[in-house]
Amino acid sequence: MEAKGYHVAVVGATGAVGQQMLQTLENRNFPISKLTLLSSERSAGTKVTFKNEEYTVQAATPESFEGVQIALFSAGGNVSKQLAPEAVKRGAIVVDNTSAYRMDENVPLVVPEVNEEALKTHNGIIANPNCSTIQMVVALEPLRQAYGLNKVIVSTYQAVSGAGAVAINELREQSKAILNGDQFTPEILPVKGDEKHYQIAFNAIPQIDKFQDNGFTFEEMKMINETKKIMNTPQLQVAATCVRLPVETGHSESVYIEIDQKDVTADQIKALLKDADGVTLQDDPSNQIYPMPAHCVGKNDVFVGRIRKDLDQENGFHMWIVSDNLLKGAAWNSVQIAESLIKLQLV
Amino acid sequence: MEAKGYHVAVVGATGAVGQQMLQTLENRNFPISKLTLLSSERSAGTKVTFKNEEYTVQAATPESFEGVQIALFSAGGNVSKQLAPEAVKRGAIVVDNTSAYRMDENVPLVVPEVNEEALKTHNGIIANPNCSTIQMVVALEPLRQAYGLNKVIVSTYQAVSGAGAVAINELREQSKAILNGDQFTPEILPVKGDEKHYQIAFNAIPQIDKFQDNGFTFEEMKMINETKKIMNTPQLQVAATCVRLPVETGHSESVYIEIDQKDVTADQIKALLKDADGVTLQDDPSNQIYPMPAHCVGKNDVFVGRIRKDLDQENGFHMWIVSDNLLKGAAWNSVQIAESLIKLQLV
Repeated sequence: MEAKGYHVAVVGATGAVGQQMLQTLENRNFPISKLTLLSSERSAGTKVTFKNEEYTVQAATPESFEGVQIALFSAGGNVSKQLAPEAVKRGAIVVDNTSAYRMDENVPLVVPEVNEEALKTHNGIIANPNCSTIQMVVALEPLRQAYGLNKVIVSTYQAVSGAGAVAINELREQSKAILNGDQFTPEILPVKGDEKHYQIAFNAIPQIDKFQDNGFTFEEMKMINETKKIMNTPQLQVAATCVRLPVETGHSESVYIEIDQKDVTADQIKALLKDADGVTLQDDPSNQIYPMPAHCVGKNDVFVGRIRKDLDQENGFHMWIVSDNLLKGAAWNSVQIAESLIKLQLV
Repeated sequence: MEAKGYHVAVVGATGAVGQQMLQTLENRNFPISKLTLLSSERSAGTKVTFKNEEYTVQAATPESFEGVQIALFSAGGNVSKQLAPEAVKRGAIVVDNTSAYRMDENVPLVVPEVNEEALKTHNGIIANPNCSTIQMVVALEPLRQAYGLNKVIVSTYQAVSGAGAVAINELREQSKAILNGDQFTPEILPVKGDEKHYQIAFNAIPQIDKFQDNGFTFEEMKMINETKKIMNTPQLQVAATCVRLPVETGHSESVYIEIDQKDVTADQIKALLKDADGVTLQDDPSNQIYPMPAHCVGKNDVFVGRIRKDLDQENGFHMWIVSDNLLKGAAWNSVQIAESLIKLQLV
């Protein structure tokens, strides 16, 4: 008799997102019959606790995936490129949190509130979108469905945890040094491995990921291209400016949209988002209620507020969208995809 | 024989902006024959050093302005409403850094790089615009003149020093408390005197100044209305979302514009801004060169970078504008207005 549950592997189990994946699997009481925790050679041997049981993290190899049914990858694009096909070859469905397969035509890019049905077309690998993209499409899809959507201009306010645990540590240590009047040397941000590093504490850096020739960063292009793929709207106009802030966790976005319909009010949009899947409306300016990163940490929802009609454009609206980038932006969306796979009997 | 110089008064001499005004007057070697330092009753008696001489700050009264030729006000809107007319009555020209007179039809609202000529229409009071507006119009006016400008959408990343010395202190103390795991109670931000106060350290607050009924904050409406007045473009479409960050000094802005001309390239815009008054172009993505608040502190210029053409709109461009909010956003622009008054022989 088969155990009631699935053999699940977490690849990158010791990282910032991997840790949140384990926490989320535990919180959701995800049906697990066997749990395999994998990492790079460097982190292998680390002890990790899941549901009061201690696990030893093992170095990921192709053979690690024998018998695995669901593999959640979050160990960098290169690891995914190398090992995701090996996992699929051995019968696993891969939910990949890196950018390796997101724009691959054969790979569905899924946010369950938006395009859960796309899971049915999978060929073994399912891509989890970029964190800043996920929270935006969760808030915009209900508007697109109700009113049509033709233009999106977003400026982001992104937390350092998107750049991993080393970036969180850099923010903390730099903040301490500045407050104490001590010297410090930036070593991680804005982009680990890029040529120059800048102060993030008490600063704002308009670079996330490397630059493309067109002047946009890869992070900005991810938001532009992934939004169109997830919503299946190749004609949608999307523009993004992505900025890193001295915030530990919680991405915020100032979003301007133009919808197709011209007679819609801000109150109608609020009413729609109040009932939307995965959205919590926090929009009561007279009581100073609006979303903020410090209040979203540890929560799965996308928080939306500051919804108001543009003063010139009758189909234009502004809003402020905040979510925990490690949860809905990564771990929770991945686990949610796994839950959808079960629900749709695809695993 | 008249002394070579002017009798200058600084009202609010002990505040964050007042201190920068004195520093700027000293740095510029502004022609001063007599200096009168004024403040509220509360701060009267404070000793302040200017050019190695010690001054005692006095409580401002109508009589304080006898003989004053140029009065720089930065002590809050109520002080300006009460005392600016008294100063004018006694023959002074007032440069007012508060919002008290900015939208008054009889008061020119001046950024010298943009509308210095408007000074000629003054009736005693000249208004210094809001900090976030000033840096934006310095960067946009050359584009408006060259190509025509019809739409501006800005999202701001504003430093706490715009809310005064108490807000700087709150950011520092809160940051220390959080890093040490200590308790803290927000008391100042987002708006001193408003009902609720929120954590600013390691957070982002989408509220600067109080809310209007239309869902925009007063700060956002200042950017919208003042931009049109300074540029003398009532038809210009402007929208703003203003956000407070855990940055001490230096406002940043993610700005999207649409110009009238359709065949302009990003390189042309860069070339134009490279030679523009008051602008320093910092735009070399391949070498990770772009403006940041941490690098603009103590400098008078407006820094512009990340200039790129929109991927859909052929007359659309994105850019990132940074400046020291206490200098070009306040003290330096005020002193610059005073210098223009001398140059134009208006004082």
